[in-house]
Amino acid sequence: MAIIVQKFGGTSVADAEKIRRAAKRAIKSVEKGFQVVVVASARGKQTDELIADALELNPNPPKREMDQLLSTGEQQSVSLFAMALDAMGYEAISFTGGQIRMITDSVHTNAKIKSIEAERIHKQLDKGKIVIIAGFQGIDEQENITTLGRGGSDTTAVALAAALGARECEIYTDVDGIHTTDPRIFKNAVKMKEISYDEMLELASLGAGVIHTRAVGFGKKYDVRIHVRSSSEETVGTIITHEVPQMEGVVVSGATVQKDMAKIGLVGVDNIPGNAAKIFASLANAKVIVNDIIQTEVSAEKANLAFTVSISDLPAAKEAVEKIKQDVNCQSIFVRDDIAEVSVVGVGMRSHYGIADKMFSALAKAKINIDSITTSEIRISCAVAKDQAEEALEAVCFAFELDKSAEERTGGS
Amino acid sequence: MAIIVQKFGGTSVADAEKIRRAAKRAIKSVEKGFQVVVVASARGKQTDELIADALELNPNPPKREMDQLLSTGEQQSVSLFAMALDAMGYEAISFTGGQIRMITDSVHTNAKIKSIEAERIHKQLDKGKIVIIAGFQGIDEQENITTLGRGGSDTTAVALAAALGARECEIYTDVDGIHTTDPRIFKNAVKMKEISYDEMLELASLGAGVIHTRAVGFGKKYDVRIHVRSSSEETVGTIITHEVPQMEGVVVSGATVQKDMAKIGLVGVDNIPGNAAKIFASLANAKVIVNDIIQTEVSAEKANLAFTVSISDLPAAKEAVEKIKQDVNCQSIFVRDDIAEVSVVGVGMRSHYGIADKMFSALAKAKINIDSITTSEIRISCAVAKDQAEEALEAVCFAFELDKSAEERTGGS
Repeated sequence: MAIIVQKFGGTSVADAEKIRRAAKRAIKSVEKGFQVVVVASARGKQTDELIADALELNPNPPKREMDQLLSTGEQQSVSLFAMALDAMGYEAISFTGGQIRMITDSVHTNAKIKSIEAERIHKQLDKGKIVIIAGFQGIDEQENITTLGRGGSDTTAVALAAALGARECEIYTDVDGIHTTDPRIFKNAVKMKEISYDEMLELASLGAGVIHTRAVGFGKKYDVRIHVRSSSEETVGTIITHEVPQMEGVVVSGATVQKDMAKIGLVGVDNIPGNAAKIFASLANAKVIVNDIIQTEVSAEKANLAFTVSISDLPAAKEAVEKIKQDVNCQSIFVRDDIAEVSVVGVGMRSHYGIADKMFSALAKAKINIDSITTSEIRISCAVAKDQAEEALEAVCFAFELDKSAEERTGGS
Repeated sequence: MAIIVQKFGGTSVADAEKIRRAAKRAIKSVEKGFQVVVVASARGKQTDELIADALELNPNPPKREMDQLLSTGEQQSVSLFAMALDAMGYEAISFTGGQIRMITDSVHTNAKIKSIEAERIHKQLDKGKIVIIAGFQGIDEQENITTLGRGGSDTTAVALAAALGARECEIYTDVDGIHTTDPRIFKNAVKMKEISYDEMLELASLGAGVIHTRAVGFGKKYDVRIHVRSSSEETVGTIITHEVPQMEGVVVSGATVQKDMAKIGLVGVDNIPGNAAKIFASLANAKVIVNDIIQTEVSAEKANLAFTVSISDLPAAKEAVEKIKQDVNCQSIFVRDDIAEVSVVGVGMRSHYGIADKMFSALAKAKINIDSITTSEIRISCAVAKDQAEEALEAVCFAFELDKSAEERTGGS
């Protein structure tokens, strides 16, 4: 029998009514003939409440104890979920991370999964039970409880799907899938039927609050078909999977805009080996996360170097480059705190010409100036003025027909 | 180094302030040179809340899942307790029942302890840590979480004290110890310095809400010195221990009154082997808990048989005896629903004359009629009219000088 893993987040198990609704989802898949493994997160705001309880006692609680505390949230969810299924006449059994020997390293609050004892789960599934597993948690070799950090329950679900050889890992959420762009900005955005792992990773912001990039990366590594879908509607959502041939035809899958970006430029840096390294070491020391880096050689001796950071990192970034300025013989520093970055992403770009051109033309037609450009194999990003961010996204979306489903598109996109 | 086990109940860890206060207790014992193991219950009303959550989903939740759910309450307490100690500069580590391999049978919601892995605890104590252990819970051989039922945390504490060879098991509570009788009824009741396990078991109602009889029985079996003391005051409480020579001098240690008792009498039952068994089998089937049984032979052929039950069991008990009435050829049944039972308890009774006489005289002097009398080796109980229950207790307490400490008493008590 084929196995389906279903992951329900905190909002999907927040109260008795929602737990019952999620339980019905699991039952529906059982009725279809699947063996079902459910992964549940802690109910609603419970994790936040436990964190508050901890901080009241200790502003800097030991991480091991934090894991011991927070893991109870999921344990409560899974036992309640099993009770709900039992009340509906279905046999179910709940497990903590420790009980299925979800072994992790010992990095408390941010542990990495090392192995899972799939046998114990198979045994229960083969008895006809629905197996409910606490997300977000594991144990280390010494049986200390660990937690997986942000996106932990998504990662648990995808890892279980991999370990169990599941047909699909369903991520239930309050949206109906992944859209071509953020529907709050571009109203005509449409739901994608499919997206590749790589595209999803580049479009991380579209998955924000829906699926964590760490789980996507895990899915890519172990080739797990991930299905992001609505917990309230019956519709099919978006499948995240390996590139499939038909994806090649679709040049641009989605677009994003990142507002609240800032840019720092270093003008006339000595063009000698090691200077870029010095600059970024100084930024790393200051714990600044650097987004894009652009370097241009202005002469044999001098180069201009610029990078973008999120606006919240700007003060630390400025301080870090000021520190290193003399050392790299930088002539001047400029800062722009009013930029946004518009990106288009698509695996099809690799084998298509004219994508960059189409993007730049669309922006030009909308009279939007491009501050800088960066690209990866499957992404083109343009920095634009922040007050034009939404206009820019819209122009790009229309150019690449992101208001239509992939099948309906006409042009080279 | 000697080990002390300290048990804090739900009210003693109900909020951050109380957890801190309990943590200071543990620290005080560390400062005195002890290795300290803390056993904590779930915070305040948390268990009740979790039960309500469960019943909302399932009026008859599977017991395994109930244990999985309820055990989170203690897990939260112990991690928070460890965080509090850490904030005060003391190294601490919390464990669930599973983590110290508190192995139980598989009787969910009412499991019995089979073994404890003391080594893991010793190792942490030897590192200088305070070890905090979740009460009430264990795991079975298949790593299912189990709970110990009523009085579970007391039992955990006493069992740990036995397994660790602790010098003493301290039970912290909101009273300052065990009193000679219920101070709400007899204002002059005094705190006992010492009481034997057997006396404590007979005086169970005096320990109600303070220490569970199951833990006392465990303490007796493994010879654990139990110290019941106040969590808010520094005073020494009551030591529950094996009989010691000086106890022999004290004839009566304490007195109790059980109100809300009822009595059922079967008159003229055929005096043949097996009839009593039939009657009590019928009561057991009806899940009636029988208190005392009195049988008198009225002739070679006929006997009168009476027993007491709590008033809440009376309807079921009446039905059960009506069912069996013909079968045992009972002539008539009488019921009294207005009785109370006054008892005095003391290991010294074994070797003293005149105790029964003193009790009966005290009741007679107070013009209280005795309905029936039952005795055990260390207890004498008299059934009296319910509306005279408090008077009766008072008369008995004064007769045996239960308003004075054991050392101050003059008479044969």
